[in-house]
Amino acid sequence: MTDICRVPVKFSEIDSMRIVWHGNYVVYFEDGRESFGRHYPGMGYDIMQETGIYAPIYDVHLRHYASLQMGDVAVIHTTFVPKRGARLDYKYKIYRERDNQLCCEGETTQLFIDTNGELLLELPDFVQEWKKKWLSAR
Amino acid sequence: MTDICRVPVKFSEIDSMRIVWHGNYVVYFEDGRESFGRHYPGMGYDIMQETGIYAPIYDVHLRHYASLQMGDVAVIHTTFVPKRGARLDYKYKIYRERDNQLCCEGETTQLFIDTNGELLLELPDFVQEWKKKWLSAR
Amino acid sequence: MTDICRVPVKFSEIDSMRIVWHGNYVVYFEDGRESFGRHYPGMGYDIMQETGIYAPIYDVHLRHYASLQMGDVAVIHTTFVPKRGARLDYKYKIYRERDNQLCCEGETTQLFIDTNGELLLELPDFVQEWKKKWLSAR
Amino acid sequence: MTDICRVPVKFSEIDSMRIVWHGNYVVYFEDGRESFGRHYPGMGYDIMQETGIYAPIYDVHLRHYASLQMGDVAVIHTTFVPKRGARLDYKYKIYRERDNQLCCEGETTQLFIDTNGELLLELPDFVQEWKKKWLSAR
Repeated sequence: MTDICRVPVKFSEIDSMRIVWHGNYVVYFEDGRESFGRHYPGMGYDIMQETGIYAPIYDVHLRHYASLQMGDVAVIHTTFVPKRGARLDYKYKIYRERDNQLCCEGETTQLFIDTNGELLLELPDFVQEWKKKWLSAR
Repeated sequence: MTDICRVPVKFSEIDSMRIVWHGNYVVYFEDGRESFGRHYPGMGYDIMQETGIYAPIYDVHLRHYASLQMGDVAVIHTTFVPKRGARLDYKYKIYRERDNQLCCEGETTQLFIDTNGELLLELPDFVQEWKKKWLSAR
Repeated sequence: MTDICRVPVKFSEIDSMRIVWHGNYVVYFEDGRESFGRHYPGMGYDIMQETGIYAPIYDVHLRHYASLQMGDVAVIHTTFVPKRGARLDYKYKIYRERDNQLCCEGETTQLFIDTNGELLLELPDFVQEWKKKWLSAR
Repeated sequence: MTDICRVPVKFSEIDSMRIVWHGNYVVYFEDGRESFGRHYPGMGYDIMQETGIYAPIYDVHLRHYASLQMGDVAVIHTTFVPKRGARLDYKYKIYRERDNQLCCEGETTQLFIDTNGELLLELPDFVQEWKKKWLSAR
């Protein structure tokens, strides 16, 4: 289960080395998750706001291999990684559109908290349903 | 009523022209308001969260005269501008510490909204008390 | 001469009032200028890098009338405002796609500087040509 | 070799869960490196600009254990991790000042590139001198 989206580089993202500042790749990962959520609906921000269950980032790891410049388009591949337990895992590959160069690769793990900020030890119902719907279909 | 605070320039704020990207001055204005709030307490984020009354920005205007570079420190002067009605006005001057050059100048107007997002037509009690305390003292 | 572009709201842009943080509208204005530049080419970042002539923001003014939330799409209208002299002026209107509500309106003025950071008193050649091409065509 | 610096949370860093948005911790790591560089000088941005040798982030890894809210102060511990080869390694611990809770922990690896964007296979002279000065002193 992979979603691919295109994000043009913005002037405000460019640093003094004339490349995208590395911290913006965390935003690109989030762009990737949001695009993924639009294509495989049922686990988006709306249902989190409705249930009061959020999925904050617990672990994020990024490796940078090449840079993006002004005029470039980031092509973000976001893949759901099924794992056991009350967690949500994605992996990402970000390519430079003009030459298909892999620029960045990484992973995130999200955990679930309720409205009191308490960690959930079991997968929320809406995520179980989402997994049933999308993973069994494959 | 003016507060002065010092904010060192960050690498992530520098753009490809090797100066602070202009959009970061909106953050500097907010840094200025937060520092102002620490020196003249009673109108901070905590009381807004408690009362459910927030003061979103309605109008912001910035003029840029000179630039800040890596290694520079922004010296932010934030001045409360008393006006009639249910509004909050500040003006700002941002100087470059090394040579005291005026880099940016601007103004903000904030209005008040309640938890339903409704605009308040009268100044909230906590702001009236704050004005009584700090403005009459002068 | 107006360009219209759509920008979906990102989670990282939402503040604790659950609306887009006001400072992000400066980025939306820049998104608008970049989209404008793709539709009316000849004045983009590439030619600035080539000629060494940049157009930093001198003046920016924003008024906020309504808010954008998670799930919303900002529809950015960017209009070139022809003025005399060595300057570049745009005005902006940002609408909320779901109900066509005007959320923000504003203006920017850019001046021109050369590689030494000196202010240009005359319009650069590439801007004169751009104006001749696009404005006379109307 | 550890530097400790204090960074008050900004309103613009708070997300809709009323905690610091996770992507801002990449900025806190950079704040930590910059503060470290002021206390152990010789490897800062100025010498990079002078020599044309930069140290872009190659690898960054963050783990989040607890959150920071409005009013909180992040206490950033930045430690230099000596390793063999043409690389620069730091590790970080970010504490919440009010209760000394560990909020985030992570590591970065930087590599060196010259003005042509070519990767350096040996440690630049100024880094060797910096290591000689500060590491042998201990």
